Amino acid sequence: MATELDAQISLEELQLAARNHGLPLEALRHDVTPLGLHYLLTHFDIPFVDAAVWKLEVGGSVARPLSLSLDDLKARPAVTRRVTLECAGNGRALYAPRVLSQPWLQEAVGTAEWTGTALASVLDEAEAGESAVEAVFTGLDRGIQGDVEHLYERSLPLEEARREEVILAYAINGQPLPPQHGFPLRVIVPGWYGMTHVKWLQAITVVTEPFTGWQQDVAYHVRESEDEQGMPVTRILPRALMIPPGFPEFLSRTRFVDAGLVHLQGRAWSGWGAVERVEVSTDGGATWVDAVLDDPMGEFAWSAWTFDWEAQPGEYELSCRATDAAGNIQPLAADWNHDGVCNNGVQRVGVVVRGT
Amino acid sequence: MATELDAQISLEELQLAARNHGLPLEALRHDVTPLGLHYLLTHFDIPFVDAAVWKLEVGGSVARPLSLSLDDLKARPAVTRRVTLECAGNGRALYAPRVLSQPWLQEAVGTAEWTGTALASVLDEAEAGESAVEAVFTGLDRGIQGDVEHLYERSLPLEEARREEVILAYAINGQPLPPQHGFPLRVIVPGWYGMTHVKWLQAITVVTEPFTGWQQDVAYHVRESEDEQGMPVTRILPRALMIPPGFPEFLSRTRFVDAGLVHLQGRAWSGWGAVERVEVSTDGGATWVDAVLDDPMGEFAWSAWTFDWEAQPGEYELSCRATDAAGNIQPLAADWNHDGVCNNGVQRVGVVVRGT
Repeated sequence: MATELDAQISLEELQLAARNHGLPLEALRHDVTPLGLHYLLTHFDIPFVDAAVWKLEVGGSVARPLSLSLDDLKARPAVTRRVTLECAGNGRALYAPRVLSQPWLQEAVGTAEWTGTALASVLDEAEAGESAVEAVFTGLDRGIQGDVEHLYERSLPLEEARREEVILAYAINGQPLPPQHGFPLRVIVPGWYGMTHVKWLQAITVVTEPFTGWQQDVAYHVRESEDEQGMPVTRILPRALMIPPGFPEFLSRTRFVDAGLVHLQGRAWSGWGAVERVEVSTDGGATWVDAVLDDPMGEFAWSAWTFDWEAQPGEYELSCRATDAAGNIQPLAADWNHDGVCNNGVQRVGVVVRGT
Repeated sequence: MATELDAQISLEELQLAARNHGLPLEALRHDVTPLGLHYLLTHFDIPFVDAAVWKLEVGGSVARPLSLSLDDLKARPAVTRRVTLECAGNGRALYAPRVLSQPWLQEAVGTAEWTGTALASVLDEAEAGESAVEAVFTGLDRGIQGDVEHLYERSLPLEEARREEVILAYAINGQPLPPQHGFPLRVIVPGWYGMTHVKWLQAITVVTEPFTGWQQDVAYHVRESEDEQGMPVTRILPRALMIPPGFPEFLSRTRFVDAGLVHLQGRAWSGWGAVERVEVSTDGGATWVDAVLDDPMGEFAWSAWTFDWEAQPGEYELSCRATDAAGNIQPLAADWNHDGVCNNGVQRVGVVVRGT
């Protein structure tokens, strides 16, 4: 990395970094991220769930409350979707001044094949009341954050929750969810940042007033100070990442390649529309050249890109940036915000090209 | 954690912490660590291997060099072993002054069921020469460490390599090795720290002089300065860890429990012999009480332990410590060393007990 931190990492941040983990960027080569390489962020503890007694309770402002076992859910029509998931805090450690939370660099991403059943059909069966506005998703994970003891909970407007791509997932990459990905059930909301995809789901509650829980109303806002409400974080901003070329030095992670043709490759994604352009810079972002962009691997999954670089001996800072169909383009550096979210500033990879 | 770092973490260390990951300690509840929760340390990059063309080359001072495909290896007698693996650098970030490398706290551990074939039978078939002393294991992962460009390589004395428990593993927990655990083949040397279990194995070379590669002769020694040779790191020192009780505050990871009976549980292991005793302290290590210790889950796997704690309101520092059959006992704080290895000082868990 050709980047500097604004301040060194504290014990509190290290404790989080040791528990949670990003995608080692060489694993971008896999179309579908193998289990164990997908990024993982757990707010509190991973709950231990006995699937034999677990039920999903669907209630609140509904005509027919439901209590569904895992077998009930698996008996419903199944769908598998390839989805790129990214943590809203990806890039947080690169903001200056740094924000104290999970200190992601740029690796909090992954693409998996999630299998489950459509949330819309469950909501239809429960028959939400006419005055209902949101569905609240409640996990089994409990903790204290922002001085408030709570279960992890997030809501979605009903029209978003009813989108056909939203599923209640019980499998990843063809296997039952492992504990860390939300066993036995999580919600998958393609296109939205990871905080929305509530894991260890125990209840879906239809409500007639917007939900104001801590993770919804306080956390995950773009704002300059905690005195502001700010704008809620929703869909994933565009980002391109490259597989760091060559091989690394262990500690600095500086890359070494031999002079000549270097075949750069990576992935790009956005929750706001298809990625339409990926560009590469070999001079620290001063000039940009278009990469070759493949079709996306699914409506809500990343696209592969490649770029052939004629590398001359010397030291370089490589970058890439994505532009999506909605016209969003990655900035060289994103504007700082109080929660340390939505930092989609371009990747910077330090490379030494050696003469041959 | 009721612990302090000697110095804050640098960008270089954070880059490693974001790539590598520990076992979230609540996952100690699983007898066998689910895939994706086992600790993971990758020195360089995870290589991408085409198993259709990959071969294991067995050569050097042997009468019959072998070239074995993955199918060849799977056709040999298979064995499955439950093995607790720990990184030699576990605890490194808690040394003062801190050593710059992967900044583990105390979570670099996991227990998996590894399936493979006995290394001894492969060595026997190749027929090592009479003057042979070691087997060198060469991975496909290349990088620079200690200013030396090299493939990751480690050796074992032939008598260790021939122990019946040493296997060439192609599966973990009943599944093919995922890329990050060494696909298509790694060596498993039960009882030894993780650096010995070479991943992405491409060659085993029988040699007549002790191997002096960087990862063998320079790294992984217990020494006070880099001017010393020091003692090589071999088997895993005893350690007990507890599942942090109650629930956490997000950033500090301080634990909160209600007053009353708290059922503490954890695991303990040693590479030097069975764990014979686990003790718990609720006063920061001043006094110790025996925990109830289960039989080990296998000759080279951890043991479960439990301890019922009558928790009164207040603030506590909980610790646990293991003693093995060889008489090794965990220290309150391990002696510092230059490589930041073998830190099996006791765990310290900060807990707030609330009145009910």
